[in-house]
Amino acid sequence: MPQAPIDVLTIGNAIVDVLARVEDHFLQENKLTKAAMRLIEETEAHRLYDQIGPSVVISGGSAANTAAGVASFGGRASFIGKVRDDQLGEFFTHDIRAAGVSFEVSFSNSGPATARSFILVTPDGERTMNTYLGACVTLSEEDIDKRAVEQAQITYLEGYLWDPPAAKQAFVKAARLARAASRKVALTLSDSFCVDRHRKSFQDLIVRDIDILFANEKELKSLYLAPTFDDALQRARQEVELAVLTRSEAGSVIVTKDEFHVVEAEKVAKVVDVTGAGDLYASGFLFGLTHGRSLGECGRLGSLAAAEVISHLGARPQASLRTLAVKAGLLA
Amino acid sequence: MPQAPIDVLTIGNAIVDVLARVEDHFLQENKLTKAAMRLIEETEAHRLYDQIGPSVVISGGSAANTAAGVASFGGRASFIGKVRDDQLGEFFTHDIRAAGVSFEVSFSNSGPATARSFILVTPDGERTMNTYLGACVTLSEEDIDKRAVEQAQITYLEGYLWDPPAAKQAFVKAARLARAASRKVALTLSDSFCVDRHRKSFQDLIVRDIDILFANEKELKSLYLAPTFDDALQRARQEVELAVLTRSEAGSVIVTKDEFHVVEAEKVAKVVDVTGAGDLYASGFLFGLTHGRSLGECGRLGSLAAAEVISHLGARPQASLRTLAVKAGLLA
Repeated sequence: MPQAPIDVLTIGNAIVDVLARVEDHFLQENKLTKAAMRLIEETEAHRLYDQIGPSVVISGGSAANTAAGVASFGGRASFIGKVRDDQLGEFFTHDIRAAGVSFEVSFSNSGPATARSFILVTPDGERTMNTYLGACVTLSEEDIDKRAVEQAQITYLEGYLWDPPAAKQAFVKAARLARAASRKVALTLSDSFCVDRHRKSFQDLIVRDIDILFANEKELKSLYLAPTFDDALQRARQEVELAVLTRSEAGSVIVTKDEFHVVEAEKVAKVVDVTGAGDLYASGFLFGLTHGRSLGECGRLGSLAAAEVISHLGARPQASLRTLAVKAGLLA
Repeated sequence: MPQAPIDVLTIGNAIVDVLARVEDHFLQENKLTKAAMRLIEETEAHRLYDQIGPSVVISGGSAANTAAGVASFGGRASFIGKVRDDQLGEFFTHDIRAAGVSFEVSFSNSGPATARSFILVTPDGERTMNTYLGACVTLSEEDIDKRAVEQAQITYLEGYLWDPPAAKQAFVKAARLARAASRKVALTLSDSFCVDRHRKSFQDLIVRDIDILFANEKELKSLYLAPTFDDALQRARQEVELAVLTRSEAGSVIVTKDEFHVVEAEKVAKVVDVTGAGDLYASGFLFGLTHGRSLGECGRLGSLAAAEVISHLGARPQASLRTLAVKAGLLA
């Protein structure tokens, strides 16, 4: 891949996570689908917040987490997403910059508040997300910095961006700009319910504009309404140059026209909170890909980053991923 | 102690903690005194925030942490403190109520933002606090709910309240109301630098208005400018009905005119963050005291609560202290 001033530019919803531990019966009582992400309006956000216990606020957002991961490996990462000029927006901005990610999007100074996701973590470490999109709906084409897209080896887009209509336009603009500059465009499907909402547009988008597809098993099966993972995988192989498919503790599968790799998951002593597992897997993979690693090595870097993030609360790395990768013999 | 609708009412600065891990050299470079609390202005708050890494926001405030601890033991706790009507104020309010603490103080709707303390946690688990008091300076006598004070078995005041001048008046009012209602008044000295700032007033206050004094070794020595802990302890014994003195891993000493107890600290596998150790010790002690326990038992409940809070990041309990106390055979 040709060199560029930025390794990975990620574009996504800029979200602050409000994490609280709940028991399984709380999900049942509130009719919440475990492990899924659902969108909620402001009134529902208040209703839910009133019911959950003491919480912890940590910066999140899928693509933002991925950018933080790339930076933690020592890569040059940029993020585009929208916050408001409020306290949560200030917190998000501080954290993404403190993680070493370039973040230069202007704050919105009217309209909805900075987005938050109420993430309910059950004793098994699984997370159920309830997202109030807030200021994310104000991300528009104007926020896409043409120069940044052209300067990035890979522009990575999150499927969740398909939810706010203006952001969808911004997403398409970024993809087109990247391709026009002969850069690579990656997409993560984000969530199987998100795929349900946008199946046809995702299918079209992938064929037309995407070079690298990230998805987990459930999302990929949903995308093609395929009965088995293998069926879905065969179709992905036809439609995209590189498919990177994660399978939780079963590891990951990486497939191109000519190559096929099965990579094991890293062992974790105790899974505390799976929030960010997919985001961080993507960060390791993308760091590897932009640094000349083989696809198998990219997968191992992804597994390593995912293992770090599920060992603690919150979706951003708390240890240097570069240091961990050096210790594991994956980087020099 | 006579029964009352509230076990413990605590009054203090309502603060949101912004926790970040730093290396020791960061403290040296910024000339920060390890383990101390210093007050900072808004400009310094911004300067410091710009320099620290990704952070986690968790509700804090010394007396608020103590109230949360009392509630976690199953006690009836109330808190008085001041936040603004902003996002951090909403977060603080949610968390204290979700912890089971009654919190009914009106928000300020102008003036400084909700207070925050930038807490730098070094690899040894020690915390160095940099507090921007914000809306706390607007706590005034009007916020002291006479009925709440009269209904509480113990009103517990934090020494930090002596810093904002109006809060100091509120503090004195609460102490007088409690005594007029034949209730007990407890004070924590909070921090040795806080004692330095207010030594003479604290000395006078203790003799005149305080029944129960909480202090750590360093604070008590500073209070009386005593050369040894034992000297300070002898003086405290003369001046206050009950002195509860904490000594970190050396446990605690409880002293009255007639009694003297030395209580061991609970063993902790790994000290992650000592923020809140003193606050939670006080919660266990006060819960015991308002539930007819012997002074030695009160001390053991305090040690148990302190051990829980230093085993994780943040100054509020993450497990039910009642459950832990039942397991340890301290409560039935």
